[in-house]
Amino acid sequence: MQGESGGGVGGGSIDMIVIMQPSATEQQVEHVKQLIKEMGLSPHPIVGTELTVVAVVGDDRKKDRDAMEQAPGVDRVMRVLQPYKMAARAAQPERTIVRLNDLCSVGGDQVAVIAGPCSVENEAQIMDAARKVKAAGANALRGGAFKPRTNPYSFQGLGEDGLKMLAAARDETGLAVVTEVLTPSEVDLVSSYADCLQIGTRNAQNFKLLEACGRQPKPVMFKRGMAMTVDEFLQAAEYILANGNPNVILCERGIRTFEKYVRNTLPLAVVPELHHRSHLPVVVDPSQGTGHARLVPDMCRAAVACGADGLLIEVHPDPEHAMTDGAQSLTPEALETTIASLRRVAAAVDRTCG
Amino acid sequence: MQGESGGGVGGGSIDMIVIMQPSATEQQVEHVKQLIKEMGLSPHPIVGTELTVVAVVGDDRKKDRDAMEQAPGVDRVMRVLQPYKMAARAAQPERTIVRLNDLCSVGGDQVAVIAGPCSVENEAQIMDAARKVKAAGANALRGGAFKPRTNPYSFQGLGEDGLKMLAAARDETGLAVVTEVLTPSEVDLVSSYADCLQIGTRNAQNFKLLEACGRQPKPVMFKRGMAMTVDEFLQAAEYILANGNPNVILCERGIRTFEKYVRNTLPLAVVPELHHRSHLPVVVDPSQGTGHARLVPDMCRAAVACGADGLLIEVHPDPEHAMTDGAQSLTPEALETTIASLRRVAAAVDRTCG
Amino acid sequence: MQGESGGGVGGGSIDMIVIMQPSATEQQVEHVKQLIKEMGLSPHPIVGTELTVVAVVGDDRKKDRDAMEQAPGVDRVMRVLQPYKMAARAAQPERTIVRLNDLCSVGGDQVAVIAGPCSVENEAQIMDAARKVKAAGANALRGGAFKPRTNPYSFQGLGEDGLKMLAAARDETGLAVVTEVLTPSEVDLVSSYADCLQIGTRNAQNFKLLEACGRQPKPVMFKRGMAMTVDEFLQAAEYILANGNPNVILCERGIRTFEKYVRNTLPLAVVPELHHRSHLPVVVDPSQGTGHARLVPDMCRAAVACGADGLLIEVHPDPEHAMTDGAQSLTPEALETTIASLRRVAAAVDRTCG
Amino acid sequence: MQGESGGGVGGGSIDMIVIMQPSATEQQVEHVKQLIKEMGLSPHPIVGTELTVVAVVGDDRKKDRDAMEQAPGVDRVMRVLQPYKMAARAAQPERTIVRLNDLCSVGGDQVAVIAGPCSVENEAQIMDAARKVKAAGANALRGGAFKPRTNPYSFQGLGEDGLKMLAAARDETGLAVVTEVLTPSEVDLVSSYADCLQIGTRNAQNFKLLEACGRQPKPVMFKRGMAMTVDEFLQAAEYILANGNPNVILCERGIRTFEKYVRNTLPLAVVPELHHRSHLPVVVDPSQGTGHARLVPDMCRAAVACGADGLLIEVHPDPEHAMTDGAQSLTPEALETTIASLRRVAAAVDRTCG
Repeated sequence: MQGESGGGVGGGSIDMIVIMQPSATEQQVEHVKQLIKEMGLSPHPIVGTELTVVAVVGDDRKKDRDAMEQAPGVDRVMRVLQPYKMAARAAQPERTIVRLNDLCSVGGDQVAVIAGPCSVENEAQIMDAARKVKAAGANALRGGAFKPRTNPYSFQGLGEDGLKMLAAARDETGLAVVTEVLTPSEVDLVSSYADCLQIGTRNAQNFKLLEACGRQPKPVMFKRGMAMTVDEFLQAAEYILANGNPNVILCERGIRTFEKYVRNTLPLAVVPELHHRSHLPVVVDPSQGTGHARLVPDMCRAAVACGADGLLIEVHPDPEHAMTDGAQSLTPEALETTIASLRRVAAAVDRTCG
Repeated sequence: MQGESGGGVGGGSIDMIVIMQPSATEQQVEHVKQLIKEMGLSPHPIVGTELTVVAVVGDDRKKDRDAMEQAPGVDRVMRVLQPYKMAARAAQPERTIVRLNDLCSVGGDQVAVIAGPCSVENEAQIMDAARKVKAAGANALRGGAFKPRTNPYSFQGLGEDGLKMLAAARDETGLAVVTEVLTPSEVDLVSSYADCLQIGTRNAQNFKLLEACGRQPKPVMFKRGMAMTVDEFLQAAEYILANGNPNVILCERGIRTFEKYVRNTLPLAVVPELHHRSHLPVVVDPSQGTGHARLVPDMCRAAVACGADGLLIEVHPDPEHAMTDGAQSLTPEALETTIASLRRVAAAVDRTCG
Repeated sequence: MQGESGGGVGGGSIDMIVIMQPSATEQQVEHVKQLIKEMGLSPHPIVGTELTVVAVVGDDRKKDRDAMEQAPGVDRVMRVLQPYKMAARAAQPERTIVRLNDLCSVGGDQVAVIAGPCSVENEAQIMDAARKVKAAGANALRGGAFKPRTNPYSFQGLGEDGLKMLAAARDETGLAVVTEVLTPSEVDLVSSYADCLQIGTRNAQNFKLLEACGRQPKPVMFKRGMAMTVDEFLQAAEYILANGNPNVILCERGIRTFEKYVRNTLPLAVVPELHHRSHLPVVVDPSQGTGHARLVPDMCRAAVACGADGLLIEVHPDPEHAMTDGAQSLTPEALETTIASLRRVAAAVDRTCG
Repeated sequence: MQGESGGGVGGGSIDMIVIMQPSATEQQVEHVKQLIKEMGLSPHPIVGTELTVVAVVGDDRKKDRDAMEQAPGVDRVMRVLQPYKMAARAAQPERTIVRLNDLCSVGGDQVAVIAGPCSVENEAQIMDAARKVKAAGANALRGGAFKPRTNPYSFQGLGEDGLKMLAAARDETGLAVVTEVLTPSEVDLVSSYADCLQIGTRNAQNFKLLEACGRQPKPVMFKRGMAMTVDEFLQAAEYILANGNPNVILCERGIRTFEKYVRNTLPLAVVPELHHRSHLPVVVDPSQGTGHARLVPDMCRAAVACGADGLLIEVHPDPEHAMTDGAQSLTPEALETTIASLRRVAAAVDRTCG
């Protein structure tokens, strides 16, 4: 380094910083430089009086850089580069708008309301739900035919019969259908009925499923894992994008914390953060994100106020008798009131809703 | 029990439920009943074929009921009664409105904006900040004279000199002053200068400080601990109330979770939850609640949309040179823009702001 | 209820407790009783002066009881019954011992050491690793052929070629092979090579995979999800058991918390807790459970001291050059030293090790 | 920089790394360099093709470096230097041994057992407890006279009367007394009776209390906050050290996580981590660290196996009737059995116990 002016580093971006221990010897620094070169990267040490750091330049993401922590004299390894590319804002300056059908797109001026029951229970129930959420102002229909249940003895969904009922509900109402897929071998089946495939929080790092959803043509509603960092979330989304599907909607559904009054903690700051880092649209699920119907309308309003591109809301014609998630389902009447207030909040942030 | 009709239980409320192990003997159930009676409470067993539960009726909160977990044959002990009284909604049907001065009350139709620097740095800085936040539309001034710093070598605040500067800023601008107190012996001093005493997150279970703030006349802005449950928060607020001070403002400032993109995770569902459980007003601090200035305006809007009664916002005339919390401080210009948008969001939920 | 003596409840176990709000009316209590009966369960109210609770008796786990939270006048719903059956201690008084091959069983007096590299990188590496971990005293070989990687551009494993190399290593050393399976369609393939299938933390609620592993004959090493409660862990294990496979080994690999000095927080109290609740053997993975090789030996000792039935340890012949997880891999020499000390700790708790 | 060889940086240690956004302009880098110089530090930029990082050299810990995040073009700020000095291993090569009295030192070959009731309830109880824990093999007596209680209506301790009873118990048994202090104004009083002052988890960032304990002569048992990082823990310990008291014992008592089967999650990897970073002795509290007596003995064994220098164990002559913390208190008989097994585990790691 020539004085403090620094110097240009040819051949790539700064990938990480290796921090040596204060007691590290020159030989140890040499060894670290050697390891870096073996990886096809280039080392740029900065020697202080107390300790040395080595900047690493290059861009071969296949290598496991953390292994360098094991080299003698190394204190820590800090990553600098974002580990995702296609999901990054830098990859695409304009926002992605994901179109579900003529009536519903996610990511534009309109905040989409995707509402419906947790599970498809029978034809009458889903038809009733579809008509009522449409009347209440929703833009698309959600409903589960394949259900990931914590308990093996719980109701597991109607499977393909449920998909057919959802399709019938779409045929009548025109509402696009968003429904979950649980495993790669069912992706084609679900894709043939749905307008948008949902990947649930428990499968957020089921990479084989992400790949399979990346290779089919329908948009994907991708829910963050309940203990996933934002970096991991965007890397997982990258699995879908890198397999050929650009239509990914990110969905925040709450994270697991020490809090007890909610089923999950809904960290809404993730909405502007994801918009800051990525061009993908961001939807919020305040039903899973709280677990209690009485908290849902306020969290819908908060989500719209901080920039959410859509809401995923559980609505059941008769929540007390719902087979799944009754505690967090709104009635159709409550949905209607909620959407009315969301229109006012959306207008206050220069958007429309419902 | 006479069939399923159940029966009345005289003499009090149902306090807890003791769940016996499936293998518990009749003698063990008898022993549990005995322990309950020794506590001055009364036991009401319900005997199933697989297991027995014992409902416990009474209301002497001094007793340590969890000890019963140690009795042979006991599986678990579940609390039923809320452990706070004066803070509970049941204690007071109407909402508490806390008045700081003529210009600022918290808990009514107006959403209060309490803004200012993290620390009072010198007279010029706090005067400049006070004038600018007032011009931007803020209702009260925040600023720290006694600072709780993670690191012993960090700037610890100006102490009483800082309090005098805050008072001077109030004299000029008319803005009420909210400032932190760290220890019981300084409560009277801070109380003599401030319009509202702040108890910080690190002192949220410093019960001696809570008691001391309960015994002085100024309102208290009480911040939730960063790993405190809602039950613990309201019990801690009860320390202030029970010592004679009814003017408590609850403040959510973010909790500690696994998330890395924020300094704290801001769990906004706590706003409607606290309103559901308590009559006390609820303020949100999106500066501490995110740690990054770029996330603050969106979180302000979200907080107002879900019912917050006020906002505590860090604003510095020159954030790059702030002595503390620069990364999360807004400029006065950013505050002005933010308040303009908050007025629109507040109107959308039938309130005013700023 | 006849005084405090309570009464017998015919027809089943006490499943849950519904706590009514203090303000609940008699009609609301009647409505809750009605809902309970509609579910085929029976209600047993206990009426206090301040509030009423309703005990619910019956055992039909298909119903979504939480929906009752939506009934007017209900405050909370508390579960009493454990939601798993076959995994529960009550289902089987003696401990399950899972046999991997002649040299290695998990759950008996011997604490098993299952060691090897994170990934199979090539034949020379896995052969070298197998010989060295055997020489160091390990009882079985771990190694990944199908790797679940956070980043889509990272090394994804050698697939079937890797399985063949593992089988060759077993043929030479006699060590049983434990290797991960990622998706249902690959279960038969992995099962044909492995002695024990591993289900990773990211797939801990990939229920289709759990079911598929339940329907094949090899034992399953089942890792707890990084944000999974113990109740959820045992319910997920129940998916494997209920599909016909009794040979499940529970594996604790650390949970996600706010801590930063480790990759995961290793909550060792889960070892005695799982032994308390279940008859299944419990293995600890201190490599994933800390993320740093320097913490691994101490956590191995702690795990053995608190009753772990086995250890899953990442060992690489050359950690600095490992393709994955180098930072947390022991050298074979470190493994040997560690096993030597583990033998002493195991003896102190009346077991053997390695 | 002259090629890759790097260059020496005069005048200090590398304090932090500022990472610029890929889009940052030269002017923005210049502005950052200017800000660094204004802080009395010196900037050392490394320019890559994609982005630039600036290493910051110097050592003035009073400055708020995070404010730099606000400068235009800055992406992130990463700290390199440890923020504590006197607590750091580098400050003192040999381990600190803290002597409580002739019978008990913490930090040497002997693992100290500090046992006794959560609260002093009356003279008979504490005398009985002291005699019994001594007979069981404990080295020191714990017991609370000033109790920090979550609920304002709970038993708050006997105050100075309790201290006198503790002193009487010491006089008879010779056991050193460890007891909690809650507020600065009571430090002198507690210090006059106790052999070691305990600072509880709720006061772990009550900096005024830390300072007061730093200025009195007795050793301090300092408990980690329930949501405190290791960095914050050692910085808080530094408050005590920097105020003149070198006799600090670090105590891990469990952290708050999403886990439900325990009152707190006991992260034992913190024991070797603290030993790695600091010369101070480390004690584990498995009573608070689990919340259930049945988990305590296994966690004691695990703590000793991974290097703990002592154990803080709640023991009550009659746990079912304990006024506080009964659920997690051992009986004296259970303590005796536990210590017997701890002696074997301690021997297995070349130490003694009790």
